[in-house]
Amino acid sequence: MGVDRPGSSTRLRVAAVADKGVRWRSDAVVTEEPMEIRLQLASGPSTSLLVTMRTPGADYELAAGLLWAEGVLQERADVRAIRYCVDPGLDDEQRYNVVTVELAPGIAPDLAGRARSTVTTSACGVCGAASLEALRLRGIAAAEGGPVIKPEVLLRLPDRLRESQGVFARTGGLHAAGLFTVDGELLALREDVGRHNAVDKLVGWALLDGRLPLAGEVLVVSGRAGYEILQKALAAGIPLVCAVSAPSSLAVSVARDFGMTLVGFLRDGRFNVYAGAERVAF
Amino acid sequence: MGVDRPGSSTRLRVAAVADKGVRWRSDAVVTEEPMEIRLQLASGPSTSLLVTMRTPGADYELAAGLLWAEGVLQERADVRAIRYCVDPGLDDEQRYNVVTVELAPGIAPDLAGRARSTVTTSACGVCGAASLEALRLRGIAAAEGGPVIKPEVLLRLPDRLRESQGVFARTGGLHAAGLFTVDGELLALREDVGRHNAVDKLVGWALLDGRLPLAGEVLVVSGRAGYEILQKALAAGIPLVCAVSAPSSLAVSVARDFGMTLVGFLRDGRFNVYAGAERVAF
Repeated sequence: MGVDRPGSSTRLRVAAVADKGVRWRSDAVVTEEPMEIRLQLASGPSTSLLVTMRTPGADYELAAGLLWAEGVLQERADVRAIRYCVDPGLDDEQRYNVVTVELAPGIAPDLAGRARSTVTTSACGVCGAASLEALRLRGIAAAEGGPVIKPEVLLRLPDRLRESQGVFARTGGLHAAGLFTVDGELLALREDVGRHNAVDKLVGWALLDGRLPLAGEVLVVSGRAGYEILQKALAAGIPLVCAVSAPSSLAVSVARDFGMTLVGFLRDGRFNVYAGAERVAF
Repeated sequence: MGVDRPGSSTRLRVAAVADKGVRWRSDAVVTEEPMEIRLQLASGPSTSLLVTMRTPGADYELAAGLLWAEGVLQERADVRAIRYCVDPGLDDEQRYNVVTVELAPGIAPDLAGRARSTVTTSACGVCGAASLEALRLRGIAAAEGGPVIKPEVLLRLPDRLRESQGVFARTGGLHAAGLFTVDGELLALREDVGRHNAVDKLVGWALLDGRLPLAGEVLVVSGRAGYEILQKALAAGIPLVCAVSAPSSLAVSVARDFGMTLVGFLRDGRFNVYAGAERVAF
Protein backbone atom coordinates (compact mmCIF):
# COMPACT_ATOMS: atom_id res chain seq x y z
CA MET A 1 0.00 0.00 0.00
CA GLY A 2 3.01 2.26 -0.42
CA VAL A 3 2.43 5.50 -2.30
CA ASP A 4 4.70 8.46 -2.98
CA ARG A 5 2.60 10.81 -0.96
CA PRO A 6 -0.02 9.17 1.22
CA GLY A 7 -3.63 10.09 0.52
CA SER A 8 -6.46 10.27 3.01
CA SER A 9 -7.83 6.92 1.90
CA THR A 10 -6.32 3.71 0.55
CA ARG A 11 -7.95 1.23 -1.83
CA LEU A 12 -7.62 -2.51 -1.25
CA ARG A 13 -9.45 -5.77 -1.93
CA VAL A 14 -11.79 -7.16 0.71
CA ALA A 15 -14.19 -10.08 1.04
CA ALA A 16 -17.60 -8.50 1.59
CA VAL A 17 -19.98 -10.92 3.34
CA ALA A 18 -23.75 -10.45 3.45
CA ASP A 19 -26.91 -12.50 2.97
CA LYS A 20 -25.99 -13.06 -0.65
CA GLY A 21 -22.70 -14.73 0.32
CA VAL A 22 -19.14 -13.61 -0.29
CA ARG A 23 -18.09 -11.11 -2.90
CA TRP A 24 -14.51 -9.94 -3.43
CA ARG A 25 -14.44 -6.26 -4.23
CA SER A 26 -12.33 -3.12 -3.99
CA ASP A 27 -12.90 -1.02 -0.89
CA ALA A 28 -11.50 2.23 0.53
CA VAL A 29 -10.11 2.38 4.06
CA VAL A 30 -8.98 5.48 5.88
CA THR A 31 -5.21 5.98 5.74
CA GLU A 32 -3.30 5.83 9.01
CA GLU A 33 0.39 6.74 8.98
CA PRO A 34 2.77 7.99 11.64
CA MET A 35 3.81 11.64 11.55
CA GLU A 36 6.82 13.03 13.37
CA ILE A 37 6.83 16.64 14.51
CA ARG A 38 10.19 18.34 14.76
CA LEU A 39 10.83 21.71 16.33
CA GLN A 40 13.52 24.00 14.95
CA LEU A 41 14.69 27.05 16.86
CA ALA A 42 15.84 30.02 14.76
CA SER A 43 19.41 29.19 15.76
CA GLY A 44 20.17 25.56 16.31
CA PRO A 45 19.35 22.13 15.02
CA SER A 46 15.84 20.63 14.94
CA THR A 47 14.74 18.27 17.67
CA SER A 48 12.17 15.51 17.38
CA LEU A 49 9.23 16.30 19.64
CA LEU A 50 6.81 13.43 19.13
CA VAL A 51 5.28 10.95 16.70
CA THR A 52 1.53 10.60 16.31
CA MET A 53 -0.54 8.31 14.12
CA ARG A 54 -2.73 10.39 11.83
CA THR A 55 -4.59 10.53 8.52
CA PRO A 56 -2.42 12.38 5.98
CA GLY A 57 -3.78 15.77 4.98
CA ALA A 58 -3.68 19.12 6.79
CA ASP A 59 -0.36 18.00 8.26
CA TYR A 60 0.93 21.53 8.87
CA GLU A 61 -2.32 22.39 10.65
CA LEU A 62 -2.04 19.26 12.75
CA ALA A 63 1.49 20.18 13.82
CA ALA A 64 0.52 23.77 14.60
CA GLY A 65 -2.64 22.82 16.48
CA LEU A 66 -0.97 20.12 18.52
CA LEU A 67 1.84 22.46 19.55
CA TRP A 68 -0.74 25.10 20.44
CA ALA A 69 -2.70 22.69 22.62
CA GLU A 70 0.49 21.64 24.37
CA GLY A 71 1.43 25.22 25.11
CA VAL A 72 4.60 25.12 22.98
CA LEU A 73 3.20 27.90 20.78
CA GLN A 74 1.82 31.03 22.46
CA GLU A 75 0.85 33.12 19.44
CA ARG A 76 0.74 33.05 15.65
CA ALA A 77 3.99 35.00 15.37
CA ASP A 78 5.89 32.24 17.17
CA VAL A 79 5.79 30.23 13.93
CA ARG A 80 8.22 31.27 11.22
CA ALA A 81 7.55 28.40 8.84
CA ILE A 82 6.24 24.85 8.67
CA ARG A 83 7.56 22.40 6.10
CA TYR A 84 8.03 18.75 5.27
CA CYS A 85 11.46 17.43 6.08
CA VAL A 86 14.10 17.86 3.38
CA ASP A 87 16.64 15.62 5.11
CA PRO A 88 18.37 13.83 2.19
CA GLY A 89 18.48 10.66 4.31
CA LEU A 90 14.70 10.29 4.11
CA ASP A 91 13.05 8.50 1.23
CA ASP A 92 9.94 9.92 -0.39
CA GLU A 93 7.49 7.94 1.66
CA GLN A 94 8.99 9.14 4.91
CA ARG A 95 9.43 12.71 3.75
CA TYR A 96 5.72 13.46 3.92
CA ASN A 97 5.57 11.99 7.40
CA VAL A 98 8.06 14.37 9.00
CA VAL A 99 6.95 17.96 9.62
CA THR A 100 9.33 20.61 10.90
CA VAL A 101 7.94 23.65 12.71
CA GLU A 102 10.44 26.48 12.54
CA LEU A 103 10.14 29.00 15.33
CA ALA A 104 10.63 32.75 15.03
CA PRO A 105 13.89 34.28 16.28
CA GLY A 106 13.91 34.62 20.06
CA ILE A 107 11.23 31.98 20.63
CA ALA A 108 12.55 29.16 22.82
CA PRO A 109 9.75 27.26 24.52
CA ASP A 110 10.52 25.63 27.87
CA LEU A 111 9.98 22.04 26.80
CA ALA A 112 11.14 20.69 30.15
CA GLY A 113 8.67 22.98 31.89
CA ARG A 114 5.94 21.82 29.52
CA ALA A 115 6.53 18.23 30.59
CA ARG A 116 6.32 19.26 34.23
CA SER A 117 2.97 21.00 33.79
CA THR A 118 1.10 18.06 32.29
CA VAL A 119 -0.90 15.46 34.14
CA THR A 120 2.21 13.30 34.28
CA THR A 121 3.66 15.36 37.11
CA SER A 122 3.46 13.71 40.48
CA ALA A 123 4.12 17.07 42.14
CA CYS A 124 0.46 18.03 41.84
CA GLY A 125 -0.87 14.52 42.30
CA VAL A 126 -2.76 12.24 39.97
CA CYS A 127 -6.50 12.79 39.94
CA GLY A 128 -9.11 14.73 38.00
CA ALA A 129 -8.78 17.81 40.22
CA ALA A 130 -5.00 17.82 39.70
CA SER A 131 -5.50 17.66 35.92
CA LEU A 132 -7.67 20.79 36.10
CA GLU A 133 -5.10 22.49 38.33
CA ALA A 134 -2.42 21.72 35.74
CA LEU A 135 -4.46 23.61 33.13
CA ARG A 136 -4.75 26.57 35.49
CA LEU A 137 -1.01 26.54 36.14
CA ARG A 138 -0.50 26.92 32.39
CA GLY A 139 -2.37 30.21 32.64
CA ILE A 140 -5.36 29.09 30.60
CA ALA A 141 -8.25 31.41 31.40
CA ALA A 142 -11.90 30.52 31.80
CA ALA A 143 -14.36 31.29 29.03
CA GLU A 144 -16.54 34.30 29.75
CA GLY A 145 -19.63 35.61 28.02
CA GLY A 146 -19.50 34.41 24.47
CA PRO A 147 -22.19 33.27 22.13
CA VAL A 148 -25.74 32.17 22.80
CA ILE A 149 -27.13 29.54 20.45
CA LYS A 150 -30.70 28.47 19.69
CA PRO A 151 -31.67 24.83 20.27
CA GLU A 152 -33.01 24.50 16.73
CA VAL A 153 -29.62 25.61 15.35
CA LEU A 154 -27.78 23.13 17.61
CA LEU A 155 -29.96 20.28 16.37
CA ARG A 156 -28.97 20.95 12.75
CA LEU A 157 -25.19 20.88 13.32
CA PRO A 158 -24.51 17.10 13.25
CA ASP A 159 -26.18 16.68 9.84
CA ARG A 160 -24.19 19.62 8.49
CA LEU A 161 -21.01 18.03 9.82
CA ARG A 162 -21.76 14.62 8.33
CA GLU A 163 -22.77 16.01 4.94
CA SER A 164 -19.41 17.75 4.65
CA GLN A 165 -17.28 14.75 5.63
CA GLY A 166 -15.72 13.75 2.33
CA VAL A 167 -13.36 11.04 3.53
CA PHE A 168 -15.90 9.55 5.92
CA ALA A 169 -18.28 9.10 3.00
CA ARG A 170 -15.65 6.97 1.26
CA THR A 171 -14.33 4.99 4.23
CA GLY A 172 -16.70 5.24 7.21
CA GLY A 173 -13.58 5.46 9.31
CA LEU A 174 -12.94 8.99 10.48
CA HIS A 175 -13.58 11.35 13.32
CA ALA A 176 -14.59 14.87 12.40
CA ALA A 177 -14.33 18.22 14.12
CA GLY A 178 -16.29 21.17 12.76
CA LEU A 179 -16.22 24.85 13.64
CA PHE A 180 -19.56 26.63 13.33
CA THR A 181 -20.95 30.11 13.90
CA VAL A 182 -23.85 30.41 16.34
CA ASP A 183 -26.06 30.80 13.27
CA GLY A 184 -25.10 27.30 12.17
CA GLU A 185 -22.71 28.22 9.37
CA LEU A 186 -19.83 25.77 8.94
CA LEU A 187 -16.53 27.67 8.96
CA ALA A 188 -14.14 24.73 8.73
CA LEU A 189 -14.08 20.96 9.06
CA ARG A 190 -11.19 18.56 9.55
CA GLU A 191 -11.16 14.76 9.60
CA ASP A 192 -8.72 12.26 11.06
CA VAL A 193 -8.48 8.65 12.14
CA GLY A 194 -7.66 10.08 15.58
CA ARG A 195 -10.34 11.92 17.52
CA HIS A 196 -7.89 14.45 18.98
CA ASN A 197 -6.07 15.04 15.70
CA ALA A 198 -9.24 16.31 14.04
CA VAL A 199 -9.52 19.01 16.71
CA ASP A 200 -5.80 19.81 16.50
CA LYS A 201 -6.10 20.26 12.72
CA LEU A 202 -9.04 22.61 13.17
CA VAL A 203 -7.30 24.70 15.82
CA GLY A 204 -4.09 24.67 13.77
CA TRP A 205 -6.02 26.06 10.81
CA ALA A 206 -7.44 28.81 13.01
CA LEU A 207 -4.01 29.61 14.44
CA LEU A 208 -2.30 29.86 11.05
CA ASP A 209 -5.23 31.91 9.73
CA GLY A 210 -4.92 34.38 12.63
CA ARG A 211 -8.34 33.51 14.06
CA LEU A 212 -7.44 32.54 17.65
CA PRO A 213 -9.03 32.80 20.15
CA LEU A 214 -12.26 31.40 18.75
CA ALA A 215 -14.32 33.18 21.40
CA GLY A 216 -17.53 33.36 19.40
CA GLU A 217 -17.60 29.94 17.76
CA VAL A 218 -18.98 26.46 18.35
CA LEU A 219 -16.94 23.23 18.13
CA VAL A 220 -18.79 20.06 17.11
CA VAL A 221 -17.08 16.65 17.33
CA SER A 222 -18.51 13.56 15.63
CA GLY A 223 -17.92 11.19 18.55
CA ARG A 224 -17.40 11.41 22.27
CA ALA A 225 -15.96 14.25 24.30
CA GLY A 226 -13.27 13.39 26.84
CA TYR A 227 -10.80 15.45 28.82
CA GLU A 228 -8.43 16.10 25.94
CA ILE A 229 -11.10 17.45 23.60
CA LEU A 230 -12.23 19.96 26.23
CA GLN A 231 -8.64 20.88 27.04
CA LYS A 232 -7.89 21.58 23.38
CA ALA A 233 -11.09 23.62 22.94
CA LEU A 234 -10.28 25.62 26.06
CA ALA A 235 -6.74 26.34 24.86
CA ALA A 236 -8.26 27.67 21.60
CA GLY A 237 -10.70 29.88 23.51
CA ILE A 238 -13.78 28.02 22.25
CA PRO A 239 -16.62 28.51 24.76
CA LEU A 240 -19.13 26.02 23.32
CA VAL A 241 -18.39 22.34 22.66
CA CYS A 242 -20.92 19.84 21.28
CA ALA A 243 -20.44 16.08 20.99
CA VAL A 244 -22.64 13.78 18.94
CA SER A 245 -22.00 11.09 21.55
CA ALA A 246 -21.29 10.91 25.30
CA PRO A 247 -19.07 13.17 27.41
CA SER A 248 -16.85 11.86 30.21
CA SER A 249 -16.93 12.97 33.85
CA LEU A 250 -13.63 14.83 33.49
CA ALA A 251 -14.81 16.59 30.34
CA VAL A 252 -17.79 17.87 32.35
CA SER A 253 -15.44 18.96 35.16
CA VAL A 254 -13.25 20.95 32.75
CA ALA A 255 -16.32 22.63 31.22
CA ARG A 256 -17.83 23.53 34.60
CA ASP A 257 -14.56 24.74 36.12
CA PHE A 258 -13.60 26.88 33.15
CA GLY A 259 -17.01 28.36 32.32
CA MET A 260 -17.48 26.44 29.07
CA THR A 261 -20.73 25.07 27.66
CA LEU A 262 -20.75 21.32 27.01
CA VAL A 263 -23.53 19.66 24.98
CA GLY A 264 -23.61 15.87 24.60
CA PHE A 265 -25.70 13.27 22.74
CA LEU A 266 -26.52 15.90 20.10
CA ARG A 267 -28.47 13.67 17.71
CA ASP A 268 -31.91 12.42 16.75
CA GLY A 269 -33.62 15.66 17.69
CA ARG A 270 -32.36 15.89 21.24
CA PHE A 271 -29.33 16.80 23.35
CA ASN A 272 -28.14 17.15 26.95
CA VAL A 273 -26.45 20.25 28.38
CA TYR A 274 -23.83 19.21 30.92
CA ALA A 275 -22.36 22.64 31.68
CA GLY A 276 -22.92 26.30 30.84
CA ALA A 277 -26.63 26.10 29.99
CA GLU A 278 -26.77 29.91 29.92
CA ARG A 279 -25.36 29.82 26.36
CA VAL A 280 -28.35 27.85 25.10
CA ALA A 281 -31.39 30.02 24.35
CA PHE A 282 -34.13 27.73 25.59
CA MET B 1 -17.61 14.98 41.71
CA GLY B 2 -14.90 13.83 44.12
CA VAL B 3 -15.41 10.38 45.60
CA ASP B 4 -13.19 8.30 47.90
CA ARG B 5 -12.70 5.64 45.29
CA PRO B 6 -13.80 6.55 41.81
CA GLY B 7 -16.55 4.40 40.28
CA SER B 8 -17.02 3.58 36.64
CA SER B 9 -19.80 6.13 36.27
CA THR B 10 -20.58 9.47 37.88
CA ARG B 11 -24.01 11.00 38.47
CA LEU B 12 -24.67 14.66 37.78
CA ARG B 13 -27.48 17.03 36.84
CA VAL B 14 -28.05 17.85 33.17
CA ALA B 15 -30.54 19.83 31.12
CA ALA B 16 -32.16 17.30 28.78
CA VAL B 17 -33.60 18.96 25.69
CA ALA B 18 -36.10 17.30 23.35
CA ASP B 19 -39.37 18.10 21.58
CA LYS B 20 -41.08 18.51 24.93
CA GLY B 21 -38.68 21.27 25.96
CA VAL B 22 -36.09 21.34 28.73
CA ARG B 23 -36.09 19.06 31.73
CA TRP B 24 -33.43 19.07 34.44
CA ARG B 25 -32.66 15.56 35.54
CA SER B 26 -29.95 13.35 37.02
CA ASP B 27 -27.78 11.55 34.48
CA ALA B 28 -24.83 9.14 34.58
CA VAL B 29 -21.63 9.86 32.66
CA VAL B 30 -18.68 7.55 32.28
CA THR B 31 -15.88 8.32 34.75
CA GLU B 32 -12.57 9.48 33.30
CA GLU B 33 -9.62 9.86 35.69
CA PRO B 34 -5.86 9.79 35.18
CA MET B 35 -3.96 6.71 36.32
CA GLU B 36 -0.22 6.62 36.88
CA ILE B 37 1.68 3.37 36.40
CA ARG B 38 4.83 2.93 38.46
CA LEU B 39 7.36 0.18 37.99
CA GLN B 40 9.21 -1.22 40.99
CA LEU B 41 12.24 -3.44 40.55
CA ALA B 42 12.79 -6.10 43.23
CA SER B 43 15.66 -4.02 44.53
CA GLY B 44 15.36 -0.32 44.16
CA PRO B 45 12.83 2.48 44.26
CA SER B 46 9.77 2.70 42.03
CA THR B 47 9.85 4.87 38.92
CA SER B 48 6.90 6.54 37.26
CA LEU B 49 6.43 5.09 33.78
CA LEU B 50 3.41 6.91 32.39
CA VAL B 51 0.01 8.44 33.07
CA THR B 52 -3.06 7.48 31.07
CA MET B 53 -6.64 8.67 31.26
CA ARG B 54 -8.93 5.74 31.99
CA THR B 55 -12.23 4.60 33.46
CA PRO B 56 -11.59 3.29 36.99
CA GLY B 57 -12.05 -0.46 37.34
CA ALA B 58 -9.77 -3.36 36.39
CA ASP B 59 -6.86 -1.02 37.11
CA TYR B 60 -4.39 -3.83 37.82
CA GLU B 61 -5.36 -5.51 34.56
CA LEU B 62 -4.92 -2.23 32.70
CA ALA B 63 -1.42 -1.81 34.12
CA ALA B 64 -0.45 -5.39 33.34
CA GLY B 65 -1.91 -5.33 29.84
CA LEU B 66 -0.35 -2.00 28.92
CA LEU B 67 3.08 -3.14 30.09
CA TRP B 68 2.64 -6.36 28.13
CA ALA B 69 1.73 -4.50 24.93
CA GLU B 70 4.75 -2.24 25.38
CA GLY B 71 7.07 -5.20 25.78
CA VAL B 72 8.04 -4.32 29.38
CA LEU B 73 6.62 -7.65 30.58
CA GLN B 74 7.67 -10.83 28.79
CA GLU B 75 5.82 -13.47 30.82
CA ARG B 76 3.42 -13.86 33.73
CA ALA B 77 6.23 -14.65 36.17
CA ASP B 78 7.79 -11.21 35.58
CA VAL B 79 5.08 -9.74 37.82
CA ARG B 80 5.53 -10.24 41.54
CA ALA B 81 2.65 -8.04 42.70
CA ILE B 82 0.43 -5.19 41.59
CA ARG B 83 -1.00 -2.75 44.14
CA TYR B 84 -2.37 0.72 44.64
CA CYS B 85 0.17 3.20 45.93
CA VAL B 86 0.53 3.37 49.70
CA ASP B 87 2.68 6.49 49.65
CA PRO B 88 1.56 8.42 52.76
CA GLY B 89 1.89 11.65 50.79
CA LEU B 90 -1.08 10.72 48.59
CA ASP B 91 -4.61 11.52 49.66
CA ASP B 92 -7.36 8.96 49.24
CA GLU B 93 -8.56 10.24 45.89
CA GLN B 94 -5.10 9.99 44.38
CA ARG B 95 -4.30 6.65 45.98
CA TYR B 96 -6.61 4.74 43.69
CA ASN B 97 -5.10 6.49 40.68
CA VAL B 98 -1.54 5.26 41.21
CA VAL B 99 -0.79 1.60 40.48
CA THR B 100 2.60 0.07 41.22
CA VAL B 101 3.70 -3.02 39.31
CA GLU B 102 6.35 -4.86 41.32
CA LEU B 103 8.69 -7.00 39.24
CA ALA B 104 10.09 -10.38 40.21
CA PRO B 105 13.72 -10.57 41.37
CA GLY B 106 16.13 -10.45 38.45
CA ILE B 107 13.65 -8.79 36.08
CA ALA B 108 14.99 -5.47 34.85
CA PRO B 109 13.40 -4.41 31.56
CA ASP B 110 15.43 -2.23 29.21
CA LEU B 111 13.19 0.83 29.30
CA ALA B 112 15.59 2.86 27.20
CA GLY B 113 15.61 0.08 24.62
CA ARG B 114 11.84 0.01 24.72
CA ALA B 115 11.73 3.67 23.77
CA ARG B 116 14.11 3.02 20.89
CA SER B 117 11.97 0.24 19.46
CA THR B 118 8.76 2.24 19.13
CA VAL B 119 7.62 4.23 16.14
CA THR B 120 9.27 7.31 17.65
CA THR B 121 12.70 6.21 16.55
CA SER B 122 14.04 8.02 13.55
CA ALA B 123 16.62 5.27 13.04
CA CYS B 124 14.07 3.13 11.22
CA GLY B 125 12.26 6.05 9.65
CA VAL B 126 8.72 7.30 10.06
CA CYS B 127 6.20 5.54 7.89
CA GLY B 128 3.80 2.63 8.05
CA ALA B 129 6.40 0.12 6.87
CA ALA B 130 8.80 1.29 9.57
CA SER B 131 6.10 0.83 12.21
CA LEU B 132 5.69 -2.79 11.12
CA GLU B 133 9.44 -3.25 11.12
CA ALA B 134 9.56 -1.97 14.72
CA LEU B 135 7.14 -4.72 15.73
CA ARG B 136 9.34 -7.31 14.04
CA LEU B 137 12.42 -5.96 15.80
CA ARG B 138 10.65 -6.60 19.10
CA GLY B 139 10.56 -10.27 18.15
CA ILE B 140 6.79 -10.45 17.80
CA ALA B 141 5.94 -13.47 15.68
CA ALA B 142 3.26 -13.81 13.06
CA ALA B 143 0.05 -15.68 13.83
CA GLU B 144 -0.09 -19.13 12.29
CA GLY B 145 -2.92 -21.59 11.91
CA GLY B 146 -5.38 -20.86 14.63
CA PRO B 147 -9.13 -20.94 14.73
CA VAL B 148 -11.66 -20.99 11.91
CA ILE B 149 -14.96 -19.27 12.61
CA LYS B 150 -18.35 -19.56 10.92
CA PRO B 151 -19.91 -16.40 9.45
CA GLU B 152 -23.13 -16.97 11.39
CA VAL B 153 -21.16 -17.04 14.66
CA LEU B 154 -19.29 -13.86 13.70
CA LEU B 155 -22.55 -12.05 13.01
CA ARG B 156 -23.83 -12.77 16.54
CA LEU B 157 -20.77 -11.38 18.38
CA PRO B 158 -21.57 -7.63 18.41
CA ASP B 159 -24.98 -8.20 20.05
CA ARG B 160 -23.40 -10.45 22.66
CA LEU B 161 -20.83 -7.75 23.35
CA ARG B 162 -23.39 -4.98 23.66
CA GLU B 163 -25.72 -7.00 25.89
CA SER B 164 -22.88 -7.56 28.36
CA GLN B 165 -21.74 -3.93 28.53
CA GLY B 166 -22.96 -2.84 31.96
CA VAL B 167 -21.43 0.62 32.14
CA PHE B 168 -22.33 1.45 28.54
CA ALA B 169 -25.97 0.75 29.35
CA ARG B 170 -25.81 3.42 32.06
CA THR B 171 -23.72 6.04 30.29
CA GLY B 172 -23.55 5.38 26.54
CA GLY B 173 -19.93 6.44 26.78
CA LEU B 174 -17.58 3.49 26.67
CA HIS B 175 -15.56 1.40 24.33
CA ALA B 176 -15.66 -2.34 24.86
CA ALA B 177 -13.31 -5.20 24.06
CA GLY B 178 -14.57 -8.77 24.29
CA LEU B 179 -12.77 -12.07 24.05
CA PHE B 180 -14.77 -14.89 22.45
CA THR B 181 -14.27 -18.54 21.58
CA VAL B 182 -14.78 -19.50 17.92
CA ASP B 183 -18.12 -20.96 19.06
CA GLY B 184 -19.27 -17.50 20.09
CA GLU B 185 -18.93 -17.90 23.85
CA LEU B 186 -17.93 -14.69 25.65
CA LEU B 187 -14.90 -15.37 27.87
CA ALA B 188 -14.30 -11.85 29.16
CA LEU B 189 -15.30 -8.26 28.47
CA ARG B 190 -13.71 -5.00 29.57
CA GLU B 191 -14.92 -1.43 29.13
CA ASP B 192 -13.11 1.90 29.17
CA VAL B 193 -13.48 5.47 28.02
CA GLY B 194 -10.32 4.81 26.00
CA ARG B 195 -10.46 2.43 23.06
CA HIS B 196 -6.98 1.05 23.70
CA ASN B 197 -7.46 0.71 27.44
CA ALA B 198 -10.34 -1.72 26.99
CA VAL B 199 -8.01 -4.03 25.01
CA ASP B 200 -5.19 -3.57 27.53
CA LYS B 201 -7.54 -4.53 30.39
CA LEU B 202 -8.61 -7.65 28.52
CA VAL B 203 -5.05 -8.72 27.73
CA GLY B 204 -3.97 -7.88 31.29
CA TRP B 205 -6.71 -10.15 32.61
CA ALA B 206 -5.50 -12.95 30.35
CA LEU B 207 -1.88 -12.38 31.39
CA LEU B 208 -2.63 -12.44 35.13
CA ASP B 209 -4.87 -15.47 34.61
CA GLY B 210 -2.07 -17.35 32.83
CA ARG B 211 -3.93 -17.50 29.51
CA LEU B 212 -1.43 -15.89 27.11
CA PRO B 213 -0.97 -16.38 24.23
CA LEU B 214 -4.62 -16.29 23.18
CA ALA B 215 -3.91 -18.33 20.07
CA GLY B 216 -7.40 -19.78 19.71
CA GLU B 217 -9.57 -16.81 20.57
CA VAL B 218 -11.37 -13.94 18.86
CA LEU B 219 -11.10 -10.27 19.88
CA VAL B 220 -14.11 -8.03 19.19
CA VAL B 221 -13.88 -4.26 19.66
CA SER B 222 -16.97 -2.04 19.76
CA GLY B 223 -15.56 0.70 17.56
CA ARG B 224 -12.86 1.11 14.97
CA ALA B 225 -9.63 -0.82 14.59
CA GLY B 226 -6.43 1.17 14.13
CA TYR B 227 -2.77 0.30 14.29
CA GLU B 228 -2.59 0.14 18.08
CA ILE B 229 -5.50 -2.29 18.46
CA LEU B 230 -3.87 -4.71 16.00
CA GLN B 231 -0.48 -4.28 17.65
CA LYS B 232 -1.93 -5.12 21.07
CA ALA B 233 -3.83 -8.13 19.72
CA LEU B 234 -0.68 -9.36 17.97
CA ALA B 235 1.39 -9.04 21.14
CA ALA B 236 -1.24 -11.15 22.95
CA GLY B 237 -1.12 -13.80 20.23
CA ILE B 238 -4.73 -13.22 19.12
CA PRO B 239 -5.10 -14.33 15.47
CA LEU B 240 -8.61 -13.00 14.78
CA VAL B 241 -9.69 -9.39 15.35
CA CYS B 242 -13.18 -8.04 14.60
CA ALA B 243 -14.26 -4.41 14.68
CA VAL B 244 -17.86 -3.23 14.69
CA SER B 245 -16.71 -0.20 12.71
CA ALA B 246 -13.98 0.64 10.18
CA PRO B 247 -10.34 -0.46 10.13
CA SER B 248 -7.49 1.82 9.11
CA SER B 249 -4.96 1.18 6.34
CA LEU B 250 -2.18 0.50 8.83
CA ALA B 251 -4.35 -1.93 10.80
CA VAL B 252 -4.87 -3.86 7.57
CA SER B 253 -1.12 -3.78 6.91
CA VAL B 254 -0.31 -5.21 10.35
CA ALA B 255 -2.90 -7.97 9.90
CA ARG B 256 -1.64 -8.90 6.42
CA ASP B 257 2.03 -8.78 7.35
CA PHE B 258 1.63 -10.83 10.52
CA GLY B 259 -0.84 -13.43 9.29
CA MET B 260 -3.78 -12.18 11.32
CA THR B 261 -7.45 -12.13 10.31
CA LEU B 262 -9.10 -8.70 10.36
CA VAL B 263 -12.87 -8.31 10.08
CA GLY B 264 -14.45 -4.84 9.90
CA PHE B 265 -17.95 -3.32 9.79
CA LEU B 266 -19.25 -6.37 11.66
CA ARG B 267 -22.86 -5.20 12.11
CA ASP B 268 -26.33 -5.29 10.63
CA GLY B 269 -25.92 -8.80 9.24
CA ARG B 270 -22.80 -8.17 7.21
CA PHE B 271 -19.02 -7.76 7.49
CA ASN B 272 -15.86 -7.27 5.45
CA VAL B 273 -12.75 -9.42 5.70
CA TYR B 274 -9.64 -7.29 5.17
CA ALA B 275 -7.00 -9.93 5.87
CA GLY B 276 -6.69 -13.63 6.63
CA ALA B 277 -9.95 -14.77 5.01
CA GLU B 278 -8.80 -18.40 5.42
CA ARG B 279 -9.99 -18.28 9.06
CA VAL B 280 -13.59 -17.53 8.01
CA ALA B 281 -15.51 -20.68 7.04
CA PHE B 282 -17.49 -19.30 4.10
